[in-house]
Order: sequence, then C-alpha cells, then structure tokens
Amino acid sequence: MEAQRFERGARKLAEVDGEAGQKVIAALQDVAPDLARYVIEFGFGDIYSRPGLDLRTRELATVAALTAIGHAQPQLKVHVNGALNVGCSAAEVVEVIIQMALYAGFPAALNAMFSAKQVFGERGLLPADRHPV
Amino acid sequence: MEAQRFERGARKLAEVDGEAGQKVIAALQDVAPDLARYVIEFGFGDIYSRPGLDLRTRELATVAALTAIGHAQPQLKVHVNGALNVGCSAAEVVEVIIQMALYAGFPAALNAMFSAKQVFGERGLLPADRHPV
Amino acid sequence: MEAQRFERGARKLAEVDGEAGQKVIAALQDVAPDLARYVIEFGFGDIYSRPGLDLRTRELATVAALTAIGHAQPQLKVHVNGALNVGCSAAEVVEVIIQMALYAGFPAALNAMFSAKQVFGERGLLPADRHPV
Amino acid sequence: MEAQRFERGARKLAEVDGEAGQKVIAALQDVAPDLARYVIEFGFGDIYSRPGLDLRTRELATVAALTAIGHAQPQLKVHVNGALNVGCSAAEVVEVIIQMALYAGFPAALNAMFSAKQVFGERGLLPADRHPV
Amino acid sequence: MEAQRFERGARKLAEVDGEAGQKVIAALQDVAPDLARYVIEFGFGDIYSRPGLDLRTRELATVAALTAIGHAQPQLKVHVNGALNVGCSAAEVVEVIIQMALYAGFPAALNAMFSAKQVFGERGLLPADRHPV
Amino acid sequence: MEAQRFERGARKLAEVDGEAGQKVIAALQDVAPDLARYVIEFGFGDIYSRPGLDLRTRELATVAALTAIGHAQPQLKVHVNGALNVGCSAAEVVEVIIQMALYAGFPAALNAMFSAKQVFGERGLLPADRHPV
Repeated sequence: MEAQRFERGARKLAEVDGEAGQKVIAALQDVAPDLARYVIEFGFGDIYSRPGLDLRTRELATVAALTAIGHAQPQLKVHVNGALNVGCSAAEVVEVIIQMALYAGFPAALNAMFSAKQVFGERGLLPADRHPV
Repeated sequence: MEAQRFERGARKLAEVDGEAGQKVIAALQDVAPDLARYVIEFGFGDIYSRPGLDLRTRELATVAALTAIGHAQPQLKVHVNGALNVGCSAAEVVEVIIQMALYAGFPAALNAMFSAKQVFGERGLLPADRHPV
Repeated sequence: MEAQRFERGARKLAEVDGEAGQKVIAALQDVAPDLARYVIEFGFGDIYSRPGLDLRTRELATVAALTAIGHAQPQLKVHVNGALNVGCSAAEVVEVIIQMALYAGFPAALNAMFSAKQVFGERGLLPADRHPV
Repeated sequence: MEAQRFERGARKLAEVDGEAGQKVIAALQDVAPDLARYVIEFGFGDIYSRPGLDLRTRELATVAALTAIGHAQPQLKVHVNGALNVGCSAAEVVEVIIQMALYAGFPAALNAMFSAKQVFGERGLLPADRHPV
Repeated sequence: MEAQRFERGARKLAEVDGEAGQKVIAALQDVAPDLARYVIEFGFGDIYSRPGLDLRTRELATVAALTAIGHAQPQLKVHVNGALNVGCSAAEVVEVIIQMALYAGFPAALNAMFSAKQVFGERGLLPADRHPV
Repeated sequence: MEAQRFERGARKLAEVDGEAGQKVIAALQDVAPDLARYVIEFGFGDIYSRPGLDLRTRELATVAALTAIGHAQPQLKVHVNGALNVGCSAAEVVEVIIQMALYAGFPAALNAMFSAKQVFGERGLLPADRHPV
C-alpha cells in the first residue's frame, strides 16, 4: 500500500510539476530523502490524487496560496509551471495573482507576478494582461 | 466613471458575498466609510469584475489564500459563503482547504475547516468528505 | 543600571499604554513575570525611550505593523489606545489602517479597523473617516 | 500498510495529545474526515513516530513554531498540553515561549503565553517563571 | 474620472517613489499592465493622495509594515527610498526598523536593516545610529 | 550592570553562533550599532543566558521557529550553525525541519532544508536522513 501511494504520487508529481518537481526531489536526496518521500506520498499520492477538484483548479488554488504566503517563491515557480502543465493559461495565472493584491497586499502580488514572469519567459510566454476593465 | 466603478462593484459584491458582504460594509460606515468604498470600488468594481476567470475559480482561489493567511477567519467565512453563492459545492470548498495543509500546514487547514464547518452548518450543509483515496 | 532601565520603562509604559499596558503586565505575573519585565525593560526602557522619533510617530508605526501582522489584535487595541494617549487623532489611526490595505491586504485592514472601532467606542470616539478623495 | 500507519498514528496521537487530540479528530468527522485521517496517518503515524528526536524535544519545537506562527492558538493549546503530557515541565514551556519574543516579536510571545497560562490553569499548574537572570 | 485617478496617482508615485517606482511599473508592462495600473490608480491615486496624514508619516508607517511582513524586501527598498525622498532622515528610518524588533522579532528587523543599509549606501548615506540610550 | 549584560551576551553569542554571529554584529556597526547591541544584550545577555533550558533545546526551538517564519533564511543558517556548535547533530536539525512540514507547510520546510543543506555542506556534513519509518 505504501508502495502504491509512492507510485501514484510519483506519477502525479510527474504529471503536474514535471522536471521542476524532479529537481526538488533530487536535491533532497543527500540531506533529507524522507522529506522527498513525504512530498511524493502525502503531497501527490494522497492530496493531489484526490478526486473532487480538477488539477487546473488545484494548481490555481496553489498559486493563490503561495502568492499569499509570500516567502515561497521557489515553490511558486514550480506551481506556475504546474498550472501551465495541466492546462491553465498564462492569463489565468496572471488573474489569480492580481486577485491576491486584495487579500495579501500588493508586495505579495508583485513578487509573485515577477516570479510568474520569469517562468513565462522561460517557456516563451509573455502575454500581456488582456482584460482591462 | 467613479460612480460606474462603485455601482458595478456594489452589484458584484451583492452577487458574490450577499448579506455577509453588506454587513461588513455597514459596520464600517461610522468608522471608515472610505475603506468600505474601496472594498466595493477596487475589490469588486475592479478585481472581481474582471473577465478571465469565472467567479467559482475566483472564490476557490480566495478560500485557498485566506486559509493560508490564517488570521482572516471572518473574511474566510464570508468567502466560503461566497463560494457557495456562486455555485461551488461544499465538497469543493473542503477539497481546497484540505489541499492547504500542504502549503500552509495543518493548523491553518484545521482552523479554516472549522470556519467552513460553521458556515456549512448555518446553511444546513454538513457534507462528509466523500472522496477517500 | 538595570533598575534604571526598569524604572524608565515603567514610566514610559504608563505614559504610552496607560491602564491597558498595566493589565498585560499584571496578567503575566503568575505565569512569566520575566516576560513582563522584558516588556518594560527592553520594550519601553530601551526602545520606546530612544530619542530620534516622537511617540506619535512610534505609535502610528506600531499600529501599521500590528495591522500587517494580523494575529496581534490584543496588542493592536493596546496601541490604538497608546496612539490616542500620546496625541494622535482617531482619524490618523484610521488613515494608517486604511493604508495597510495596500501592503497587507484588505482582511488585515478590516480586522484592524474593527479592533480600532472597538477602542474608539470605548473612548467615546467614533469619527467618520472625513477625508474622501 | 495504510492500516499500520493509521494505528501507529492513533496510538501516538493518544500518547502525545490525549483527549485534546481526540476532540479535534471527532470535530472533523462530519465535515472532512479525510483531514482527520491525514492528521493521524501523516502527522502522527509518519512524523511523530520517527526516531531521531525524543517527544519532549518534538513538543518544545512545536510550541516554538506555533508561537511564531501566531494564528494557531487552538493548536498551541493542544501542544502545550502535549508537551506536559510527554514530560516537559511548565517552566520549560514558558522558557520556549519567552525565547520566541526574539524571533517572532512580543505580541506572538504574549499571545502564546496567555494560551499556555490557560492550559496551565486547567491543569492546576501556574508556576511563576523561576529563573530571573 | 478614471483618468484623473491615474494622473493623480502617477504624479504621487513620481513624488514618493521616484525612479524606483517607475522601474516596477515598467517591469509589469509585458506581463500584467493592469496590476501596474492598480498600483498607480488605487495605491497612489486613491490611498497616498488622501489628506489626513503627511507623506513622511505614511512612508514611515509603510517601512514599519514592510519590515514586519518580512518577505517584501524589494518593496521595502523602494519605500526606504520613498521615505528619504519625502523628507525623512536615514536616522528616522533606522529608528522605525529598530522598533520593529519588538513587534516582528529580530530576524525581520535585521533583514530590513540590511535592505535599508543597501539603500543608504546607494545614496551615499551611511549614518551611524546616533541615539544610544 | 549594563556592561555585565553586554559581556555576558557577547560570551554567549560567541559560544552559540561563533563567527556567523560576529559577522552580523560587524555588518550593523555603520548603520545601526544599537540594534547590534540589543542582539547582544537582550538576545544573548538576557534570553540565551537564562537557565531552564539547555542550549541544544534552545537552538532546536529556534530552528523550528525560523523554519516556520519562512522569511528568515539568513538567521536560520546562523542558527543551524548554532545548533551544531552547541552539540546538536545534523540529523536532529533535519528532524526538526521535517516536523515543520506539519505546522508551516512543505514550502517552509523545503526552503529551510535547503538552507540547512548549504550549512551542512560548508561544514563537510551531508548526512542522509537515516530514520525511515
């Protein structure tokens, strides 16, 4: 059963976070391999494998939370990639981050936007925010 | 134009937050009516009126962020109501809050879940989490 | 010298926080009297006794910080009282809290405003925010 | 194997958090039983069951973290109880909370101390802080 | 009216944040120009244009809040510059940051002080803290 | 007496934080020497000199808190060094950080682990986490 959680989690991690997720797992191996295992088993084998929310909504919720938390820019970049990997558009990621100015303030939104901009740049996407009110 | 922002915001606030939003606005009138005005004009007239994300996704992103922030239980209750008002199910709200255990820790997820439970109770909804992995 | 710090701090605490400060000190006596002593010696004997900033500015800076921190409503109420005690107007306190919506988000500003409203009510002050732009 | 994690976690939860932990688990049953299961399986079956740190140190580290987080007073009370349950003295809990004034500021330390005081009172312990420097 | 808010905000931004503010606005243009517009319209056209507090006090309150928030070092640098631009002395900025050790802990104060030191260095100001108690 | 606090603090700082602590103190001299003095007098002369908790437990509690706070990576590195200086093993530091995934979420735990990994590398320690459950 543990093996099932790990394998299910590893597949889900690959689906969502792709190469960026693998790098985090690899970087933990010589210092805390169990923390890597928990990311896979609990984070992706348990939580991200749950039905009840599609992966697009899960990733946008994660982008919202990591923007609000503020001190999690490396994880935010992983999940901006994740959001794009599971089918969100860059414009949707931008919308969620703009909305966070309301809840976590402008500094959190600005720092997150610049992290997203870096990811968009790496993927050849730099869409202007096309929805002026 | 300012009047347009205010009116558009007031309609959006009513659509999303309903009576709970009105109570917040009313409670500010004798201490800081301009803060109430900014909630309506900027929060709802500008941000929530943007196209690019449907209200269901906006509300789930807000639930995620307020769960992660931790010290915003009154606003979380308003937006759990808001999520239900715009068509999210209680089960979807529960899913987002569970997911936040990964990003903001279990205390933040637990406190948010008990706020959500209170709202669900007030609305006659206490669905069990029906998606065991 | 330690006695000097304590006495200087006790006088400054009385000047700034008045009765509300004394209650905090009293409530610590049977659980952690040394924490009370550090509040007086370090907080008020060292920091608040420094020249270089007048007490009005110090209190408004503290109101700003406690609003942004979010989980410090009891201390925020003490320092809204403190701000008023050292000559700030209620309108100035309201201005600082409104400004925090930019930096810490609306939930932090709203919760702080309702704490301030409670203090204003206890002191017979409920000024409307008289500076519409 | 899942059953083993759950059973190991349930035993560890009972050992550490006692009745207070059971109440949290019970309160989740009608809203998010899976979140309760994760607390037991991951929190106590995985993490608290790890060798490498004794439970006294784990609980004091948790008291430190929950004091610093600030918005987790219900969980802090559970773990002040937990610390006492696994053999920490009230004076040790008080020391950790005082130390947090350095890292998370006085409001976080004060609010945590008053939560601890409430737990000490419920258990008939109100030791003065007996270590003046 | 919207144009008025934008123009008023653009003037206020230039007055307060100068070149540093312009760089932030420019950097947003290809990813989220609306977020830049909200900074100008809401942040500076609405909030910083309010009467009721002079700009010196507004900037010191912002320095306090950004120090306490901790994860907003880029914005803190902009507003340390802003405080100096509107007439605060470096010594006043230093005082506010020292005071934050009380409310947000020493790490937040230390990190903010090193950000301020960098700004002071860029502007040819490295005043020693001249107010020993 | 003040001189005694300073000297006692300076000795304790040297004992706990070693060279890393000295660098922080030195870097403050031209911008805010009083903040450096408070770190020594209050932080180490008052708090870390208290009896009631051994230095190993104090350092592990600090590692827990700084992990949870999230935006204090420079201070976390100083105290990972501090923990090792006063006799904690790298494995114990790793355990505390893993545990924080529960309370502050995985991003906080991951960022702290990578800070710890850097310190371990500088000291020639890269122990695998040897306690799989």
